[in-house]
Amino acid sequence: MIARLTIALDAMGGDDAPDVVIQGVKLAHNRFPNVKFLLYGDEARVGPLLDGVPDMRDYATICHTEDAVSNDAKPSQVLRNGRKSSMWLAVDAVARGEAAGVVSAGNTGALMAVSKFVLRMLPGIDRPAIAGLFPTERGETVVLDLGANVECNANNLVEFAVMGEVFARAVLGVERPTIGLLNVGAEDLKGHESVRTAAGILRNSKLPISFHGFVEGNDICAGTVDVVVTDGFTGNIALKTAEGTAKLYATLLREAFGSSLMSKLGYLLARSALTKVRLRTDPRRYNGAMFLGLNGIAVKSHGGTDALGFANAIGVAIDLVAHGFNGRIKQELERLHPAQKAAPQAAIG
Amino acid sequence: MIARLTIALDAMGGDDAPDVVIQGVKLAHNRFPNVKFLLYGDEARVGPLLDGVPDMRDYATICHTEDAVSNDAKPSQVLRNGRKSSMWLAVDAVARGEAAGVVSAGNTGALMAVSKFVLRMLPGIDRPAIAGLFPTERGETVVLDLGANVECNANNLVEFAVMGEVFARAVLGVERPTIGLLNVGAEDLKGHESVRTAAGILRNSKLPISFHGFVEGNDICAGTVDVVVTDGFTGNIALKTAEGTAKLYATLLREAFGSSLMSKLGYLLARSALTKVRLRTDPRRYNGAMFLGLNGIAVKSHGGTDALGFANAIGVAIDLVAHGFNGRIKQELERLHPAQKAAPQAAIG
Repeated sequence: MIARLTIALDAMGGDDAPDVVIQGVKLAHNRFPNVKFLLYGDEARVGPLLDGVPDMRDYATICHTEDAVSNDAKPSQVLRNGRKSSMWLAVDAVARGEAAGVVSAGNTGALMAVSKFVLRMLPGIDRPAIAGLFPTERGETVVLDLGANVECNANNLVEFAVMGEVFARAVLGVERPTIGLLNVGAEDLKGHESVRTAAGILRNSKLPISFHGFVEGNDICAGTVDVVVTDGFTGNIALKTAEGTAKLYATLLREAFGSSLMSKLGYLLARSALTKVRLRTDPRRYNGAMFLGLNGIAVKSHGGTDALGFANAIGVAIDLVAHGFNGRIKQELERLHPAQKAAPQAAIG
Repeated sequence: MIARLTIALDAMGGDDAPDVVIQGVKLAHNRFPNVKFLLYGDEARVGPLLDGVPDMRDYATICHTEDAVSNDAKPSQVLRNGRKSSMWLAVDAVARGEAAGVVSAGNTGALMAVSKFVLRMLPGIDRPAIAGLFPTERGETVVLDLGANVECNANNLVEFAVMGEVFARAVLGVERPTIGLLNVGAEDLKGHESVRTAAGILRNSKLPISFHGFVEGNDICAGTVDVVVTDGFTGNIALKTAEGTAKLYATLLREAFGSSLMSKLGYLLARSALTKVRLRTDPRRYNGAMFLGLNGIAVKSHGGTDALGFANAIGVAIDLVAHGFNGRIKQELERLHPAQKAAPQAAIG
C-alpha cells in the first residue's frame, strides 16, 4: 500500500516557498523512494525548480494554480475566497482521495480552517488539536494542543488524550504510551475545573490508556510521560517559551565560545560533541505539527523552516498514513463512547 | 531608614532549614551590614547554628517557636492550626510593624494563605500575584502571576500589570518599564476574552504605563518587554517549562563535554567563559518570588535553594522595602481607579 502512497503539498506555503518545498521533496524522496507527490502551485515558478532536480518529474507532479494564501490572510477570508488557492486545492486532494495526506508551511489559522471545512471532523471528536514533538532527556514527548483551541473543556482534553496516545504509538513507536495532563501541581486539588474533571474521566475510563495523572511544565522536557495534554493557549505558550529558552542558551553559549582565544580553541576541541547536542535539539527535527481529529491527514510545517525541516514534516505525514492513524483513533473513540454509535438510531426510533 | 531595617525570616521553612536560612543570613549580612534579622524557629536547633557564625547574634535574634508548617500541609489546615508556626509568626512580625518584610522558603500555598490573612490586601487590589525574574537576552524580565491564581479576569490582569510595572522599577531599576500581555499571537483578535479585554483597558487607560501589547512565549527570554503579565496557570507552566528546557540543555551539554577526551579538554579551555553562562542563568540568582498586592512585603524563596539563593531572596525583600514598593503601588492604583477613594463616602451618604 505504501508503494503507491501519494502526498499533496502546498508548494506556495511558507516563507521561502516554493524553493524550500521543492528541496524538501528531494530530501523526502531519498527516505521514501516510493512516495509520489502532488505539488499545488504556480507552474511558472514551480516548473523550473522541478526541472533543476534530476528525475523529480518521475515522482512529483505539478497541479497548476495561480492563487496562494498570504501569511496575514484571515481564516474567514480564505474560507470565502480561497477555493482556488494552492493550500485549499492540496487539502482538497485528500478529501477527493487523490492523496493520503497533505503538508503545508502556510498560514496556520487558514490551514486549520480549510482543513476543518474540507476534510470535516472525525465522528466523535468535537475539536481538532495541533500535536507536536518536544526533545526530552529520555527521547521525545508529544504535546497537544499547541494552539488550535484557546479554550477547552474536560471532554476536549479527554479526546486530546485519546488522539495523543494513538499519535505517540504511530510517530514515536511507543507500544503503551503514558499520558499526563499539564497542571500547576501534582495534587488532585490543583488547577482549573476542566483539568480536574478530565483527570477524573481518564482515571475512571475503561480505555486501554496508561494515565499517569498531572504533570508540570518541567515534566515536558524531563520526558516524564510520552504524551502531555493541555489546552491550546497553555500549549502554545509552553512551546514558544521552550523555544525562547533554547534560543537564549544558544546565544549565551555562542557568545561564551567567542569571548576569548582559549574558549574558541575549547569549542574546536569539543565541536563534534557539541554538534550532537545541536542536532538533538534542532527545531527542524521537530518540525511537522499534526492536525489531529480531522477526517484526513494534515500536517503543518513551520513557515520559516528549510528543506530538511520540510522533509521532516513530510515524514510525519507519511508515518501517520503508514500507521493507519485515523482508523486507530476511530477505534479508540468507539471504546470511549460505546453508546454513541447506537444513539442516532435511538433518536430516530 | 535603611539603617534600622529589620527582616523577619521563617527559619524552619525549606528543604534544608534551618541550616540554609542561617547561612543565607550570613551572606545577606555581607551585602546589607545594617539590616537586622528576626529568626522565627526552634531555639534548640537555630541557636547552635547561630553560635557557629561569628558575631551573628549582633544582627540576628531568635524568636522561639516549636511549631513549623510542613511541606504537605493544606493552606486551610495552616489557617486553622498554624498560628504558632514559625511561618505565621514571621509574617505576623510584618503586620505588627516589628519587621519591614518577611522571607520564607516554606510551603507556597500556606505562605500565600497566611500572608493574605495576616497582612490583608492593598486597597483596590482583588487578588495577590506571585512575581519573579527570568533571565533574557537583554537582561532580566519580570513575569507575573507565577501561580497564585489559576483563573484571572481582565481586571486582575490589569492590576497585575500595574503591580508588575512598579516591581520592575524597584527590582530591575528600569525607569519606564514596558509591559506585555502573554498571548498566543500578536494580533488583536487572538486569545481569551480576558486577555483581549485587559489589552483594551491598558491601551485606553490614563495610566503612565508603557503598554507594548501582546507578547508570545518566546518573547519572555528574548526580553521583548520588561514585564510579562499572565494568569497564574499559564505563568506557572511557562516558568516550569523554561526551567525544564534549561535543565535539558545543561544535561545534554554535560554529557557532550564528558563524551571524549577531546571534549573534556575543550571544556577545560572554555571553562571560564562557560562559568559565566552558568552564573548568568543560575536559578539561585533568580530566587525570591514576591507576593504582590499584599499590605506588606512577603517574599517566597524556592524550597530547595541553598544559602546563596536564600540570600538573594532576602535581597529582593530589602530592595522592595528600600524602594517603598507598596506605597508606589497604592499611588498607581489611585490613578487607575480615581473614583474609588470617593465611592465609600457616597455609599454612606
